[in-house]
Amino acid sequence: MNKILLPYGSGGKYTKEFIDRYILKYFNNKFLQHLLDSAVLEIQSEKLAFSIDGYTVSPLFFPGGDIGKLSICGTINDLLCVGADPKFIALSLIIEEGTEIEVVEKILSSIQQVSQQEDVLVVTGDTKVVEVGSCDKIFVTTAGVGCIRKGLNLHYNRIEPDDVIIITGNIAEHGLAILLSRGAYGFEYNIQSDCASLKSLMQKIFDDEELTPHIKFIRDPTRGGVAAVLNEIVSYRKDLGIEIYEEKVPISQDVKYLCELLAIEPFSIANEGKMIMITSKNVVDKILSTFKTHPLGKDAEVIGKVVFTNKGKVILKTLYGSMRILDMPTAEELPRIC
Amino acid sequence: MNKILLPYGSGGKYTKEFIDRYILKYFNNKFLQHLLDSAVLEIQSEKLAFSIDGYTVSPLFFPGGDIGKLSICGTINDLLCVGADPKFIALSLIIEEGTEIEVVEKILSSIQQVSQQEDVLVVTGDTKVVEVGSCDKIFVTTAGVGCIRKGLNLHYNRIEPDDVIIITGNIAEHGLAILLSRGAYGFEYNIQSDCASLKSLMQKIFDDEELTPHIKFIRDPTRGGVAAVLNEIVSYRKDLGIEIYEEKVPISQDVKYLCELLAIEPFSIANEGKMIMITSKNVVDKILSTFKTHPLGKDAEVIGKVVFTNKGKVILKTLYGSMRILDMPTAEELPRIC
Repeated sequence: MNKILLPYGSGGKYTKEFIDRYILKYFNNKFLQHLLDSAVLEIQSEKLAFSIDGYTVSPLFFPGGDIGKLSICGTINDLLCVGADPKFIALSLIIEEGTEIEVVEKILSSIQQVSQQEDVLVVTGDTKVVEVGSCDKIFVTTAGVGCIRKGLNLHYNRIEPDDVIIITGNIAEHGLAILLSRGAYGFEYNIQSDCASLKSLMQKIFDDEELTPHIKFIRDPTRGGVAAVLNEIVSYRKDLGIEIYEEKVPISQDVKYLCELLAIEPFSIANEGKMIMITSKNVVDKILSTFKTHPLGKDAEVIGKVVFTNKGKVILKTLYGSMRILDMPTAEELPRIC
Repeated sequence: MNKILLPYGSGGKYTKEFIDRYILKYFNNKFLQHLLDSAVLEIQSEKLAFSIDGYTVSPLFFPGGDIGKLSICGTINDLLCVGADPKFIALSLIIEEGTEIEVVEKILSSIQQVSQQEDVLVVTGDTKVVEVGSCDKIFVTTAGVGCIRKGLNLHYNRIEPDDVIIITGNIAEHGLAILLSRGAYGFEYNIQSDCASLKSLMQKIFDDEELTPHIKFIRDPTRGGVAAVLNEIVSYRKDLGIEIYEEKVPISQDVKYLCELLAIEPFSIANEGKMIMITSKNVVDKILSTFKTHPLGKDAEVIGKVVFTNKGKVILKTLYGSMRILDMPTAEELPRIC
């Protein structure tokens, strides 16, 4: 009998297979056609974004955040990816009996802080309590609703050769922070998760009517990292290839060192406060300079471009001048990084 | 140190205390003022309903339904309670590693069936897989979005003395079905859960412009049962009382017999396919006859009325002519009935 495997939740190759094979079979409709993290709904003349994410991260508290901050920021960022202004959050808690109230309150307080800072209201919710042993302390599921900006038209179909690929900052921090905070490697090293709401950063771009027509694609490289996002693009656009220049990819010295030491591929590591954006070449300077005026975009860089060679592939031009294929991540990562 | 207790998830008195004490402290805003199961959002001129519910029911499969059917029907019904036409569902799965794919597929297939029958689309989703022992097989969280009917104005404030209280059918079936299916009482007895989407039933009422102005309140009596819903009304409207006539309350012979045998209060038992509606007296005949044309409303009855005596209380006039207070349920029920 077939069983559910941990990699089905990894965000990489097996997640995609699981969804294609088991989920889409039951729910095939136009909204699920491109498997964005938010659905785009039309209600009368309004276009709305609608998103959901379950969070099971372990440990609950980690350097740079906790499951509460992670959940609301994750849902806000998913709404931004379809060009929406995040507005409303629905919050569902599943809590293990006996969990300290203090733990729950710390998590709620983190959600509150982001909610207030970002002006995204928690408008409805639900709490279930299950017996000891039926869940691991607390799982948080957040759904979000936002209004889509009228000037934006984000779609895989608009991506063309020569378009540029921008990332808003240093990669691989969230996943690495979680791995290290579990102490699995027998040493401590304080890497902070990049967990953050990117609402104010992205709104700087969304507010600029000169830029918006040129933006073609936005995605947060969470589970499966940058490699998963880029591979998903070329899986929908098999007529295009992507080239990434390793020397351009922002990464902190510490993260780079640790990834080498532990033989981890940083391109497959989850981020929780970064965006990948694809735009036409002519606006790249203005986008970069706009990002750089914001603390969460100060390390933004152009990391590659869309090409018409190597169709269906993501090619990494390494620091040493060689080229290698950056594959869809499989499942080497530990589960429950988000 | 304070710990999370099972009754915090019971839907009764302790859930309300938990929410008041720990949740609202962090998220106090106008949308959460009345703790409806759906938030009512205004986006431009449109009014939207937005709802979320986590499902942890055990067993996953029970007479009359499963966690999949329960989750989508529950979210549809929550949207109906604020006068919305349910439109879109977001589906989040948290699955334990090693769970049989067949189990997951049966659940997804149940969701699909309701989705198709009721024309409510699953438009986005998320799957997480956690290690063995980190959750009990599968938890399903569904969020929903719907459009609120313009003719409806549902609010506690509109409830007046002499208004009537209607229920759409037999009470206490879901909770009892779950309790018995666990075999906790040492005998088997096939009670079917009433788990159902009430969309088509409620739309018969929503479609009738003669009726809609007279409808003041709609609520599905899930966790905590009929007693929880009625007590919540008088907790918001302390200037009113509610009288319920036991002889009028629809209940099947089997459920009645078992509740007496097991000394369970049927008014505190969860329903998953019933609505309580409060309307002005003058439309009650038409509402009842409309409900009765639909299979899910064939046992609809007027079970009581709003009064200006016994303020802040729910009074049950029993079969034997005596009166007793129907309190907000505490926590005698087992957890994970939904």
